[in-house]
Amino acid sequence: MNWKMADRAEKMNPSVIREILKVTEKPGIISFAGGLPSPKTFPIAAFTKACANVLGSDGEAALQYAASEGYGPLREWVAASLPWDIDPAQVLITTGSQQALDLIAKILIDKDSRVLVETPTYLGALQAFTPMEPEFVSVASNAGGIDLQDLAAKAAGARFLYLLPNFQNPTGNSMNEASRAALSAAAARLGVPIIEDNPYGDLWFDAPPPLPLTARNPEGCIYMGSFSKTLAPGLRLGFLVAPKALYPKLLQAKQAADLHTPSFNQRMVHEVLKDGFLDQHVPTIRALYKAQRDAMLAALEANLAGSGVTWNKPDGGMFLWLKLPKGMNAVDLLPLAVERNVAYVPGAPFYSGTPEHNTLRLSFVTSTVEQINTGIAALAQVFSENQR
Amino acid sequence: MNWKMADRAEKMNPSVIREILKVTEKPGIISFAGGLPSPKTFPIAAFTKACANVLGSDGEAALQYAASEGYGPLREWVAASLPWDIDPAQVLITTGSQQALDLIAKILIDKDSRVLVETPTYLGALQAFTPMEPEFVSVASNAGGIDLQDLAAKAAGARFLYLLPNFQNPTGNSMNEASRAALSAAAARLGVPIIEDNPYGDLWFDAPPPLPLTARNPEGCIYMGSFSKTLAPGLRLGFLVAPKALYPKLLQAKQAADLHTPSFNQRMVHEVLKDGFLDQHVPTIRALYKAQRDAMLAALEANLAGSGVTWNKPDGGMFLWLKLPKGMNAVDLLPLAVERNVAYVPGAPFYSGTPEHNTLRLSFVTSTVEQINTGIAALAQVFSENQR
Repeated sequence: MNWKMADRAEKMNPSVIREILKVTEKPGIISFAGGLPSPKTFPIAAFTKACANVLGSDGEAALQYAASEGYGPLREWVAASLPWDIDPAQVLITTGSQQALDLIAKILIDKDSRVLVETPTYLGALQAFTPMEPEFVSVASNAGGIDLQDLAAKAAGARFLYLLPNFQNPTGNSMNEASRAALSAAAARLGVPIIEDNPYGDLWFDAPPPLPLTARNPEGCIYMGSFSKTLAPGLRLGFLVAPKALYPKLLQAKQAADLHTPSFNQRMVHEVLKDGFLDQHVPTIRALYKAQRDAMLAALEANLAGSGVTWNKPDGGMFLWLKLPKGMNAVDLLPLAVERNVAYVPGAPFYSGTPEHNTLRLSFVTSTVEQINTGIAALAQVFSENQR
Repeated sequence: MNWKMADRAEKMNPSVIREILKVTEKPGIISFAGGLPSPKTFPIAAFTKACANVLGSDGEAALQYAASEGYGPLREWVAASLPWDIDPAQVLITTGSQQALDLIAKILIDKDSRVLVETPTYLGALQAFTPMEPEFVSVASNAGGIDLQDLAAKAAGARFLYLLPNFQNPTGNSMNEASRAALSAAAARLGVPIIEDNPYGDLWFDAPPPLPLTARNPEGCIYMGSFSKTLAPGLRLGFLVAPKALYPKLLQAKQAADLHTPSFNQRMVHEVLKDGFLDQHVPTIRALYKAQRDAMLAALEANLAGSGVTWNKPDGGMFLWLKLPKGMNAVDLLPLAVERNVAYVPGAPFYSGTPEHNTLRLSFVTSTVEQINTGIAALAQVFSENQR
């Protein structure tokens, strides 16, 4: 048969991480490689009760086709939960926040459109944007955020700047108040719209992060949020908040993509949320993840201080970012780590431009303190045995 | 801010049906306009039990991120349920079968690619394909299926032919064995791949439909199915079966679109399905819909025989297709019908090319026999008062 693939399909490639992580599929391995939240945090009892309530009181509506915009009470909950003035009519419920990236790409990216991203950035966003064939432009970034000079140099004609200001994936870095204020002003001056992705913002350890960029300029930003890290990812529930002028096209893209996000899941999550459940639940996630971050930082200090390996100290989220001495390559070292029963994700796939091969991402959320101690000690041995 | 929309966004328009149906939003109206299954058929008790079982026995996995391909046992169930030889590795679980259309469009349609569709065709497919900017080519069709001469004349360079051989939306028409055999041979000879969409195939009334087109040429077809009409649409669960050569790109598109279909929903549906539930359940849907189709056919005969209005007799599914005398316009008549408390969907939006303005779609599945009798009598009055 004459199957002929679309040009864009040529640019779509299997997830590099998925391929890399095949090597880590080994029973009993201590994995710092995952991007998964800890299943210990899933409120199974609350979901069980919510399922019974929703099906018992509202089963026919929960199982029927529904509006593409999302379930009204959940849209209202989202609007009320965010720290700036939002009309629920600006909220679009999505099938995970990954889908928000797909919809945004469809309405804002033409072939060869310039799309600005952090260095490094979330791999899933690169994958979601790629089918619309943008030209990715990697803006210099450091632990404090985007380099504004580099942004100014690269802004001309950019469709948008995509970034994660809180506990970024992959680095775990966050932007402070001064960086946000400066970036918001710069983006407005340069006329660059911002796509603000915030799946991890609720997972702060000591103090809530500063105001979102979107709160500072709602007409210039699309904001993305998720219930995957505060409740559970397996329900695939996310949302976006868009300026009213953009909303209709996003809605049409949503309708074409999957008609609507499962009505049952939306009601189930709203049933869990509606009486302030997150106020008690999220602090338990923060406490768990903070204890494990502390354990990982202590283990890194104990095993790698003075070795030339450096790392950051994330204030929340799930990830920590390690830099090996120049010349070392985290992809090459991964099989050696796996031999010692420990896994991580090399940093290279997270770069849209030239990768830093000496970087890697460690998740501290799915391993126990004991596993963290054992795993980091094993990693330190691999690094020291393979110094360059 | 310098928001600049993608060119494709210009082509995306609000659902015409959605706009048209706003006029039908009136309390107490008898609506034959919906595309929704009857909520009476939703197995709420079975779902309630399944939720408790899944969360009780396998809650952490059901709530965690999962493979983009879908839940293994559900993929195996799908492969085993279809009447040709399928490797479960060819099955991709999608967020409703609407998403399958989106993924297919992404990997097979370039700007201005020729996409062949029936006359008329499923509006949701036109919406799903439109963002990839195809040139739609409407192939002449009648109650027996595609006109093969017209297909041959239009086949050159076509990326695929999209069609619904069973109880089509909007017409309710089905292809018989001879038409399928001839179309399958013609498509193979012309080298035209087929996208076979089959959401309604299980809803036959007297005899199961003939073998799918895909069963006749699995390498030349992508097959799409859904649980929306046999279980419930609010869970958004569909699937596609693709030739192995195409599967990897569809999988990459799926991963980029929403990572995976909700793992909870997949397990919940598999829990309901696994012990042969559909064998008892689907016959109850068939019986209900058949009784209502019979009532509608009887009411049409009683009220419209000899009026110049004609209609088909669907052997299954949800819809019936009416033709008014030439010169009458179903869009213009709709407000008059709504005044009399009855609604339908005009046929025009289902045509990718020149519409037949005298056509309309009636759903017989969500109205009681009494409502059908009252509603068809009211429609007949509207038609007779507005003859041309």
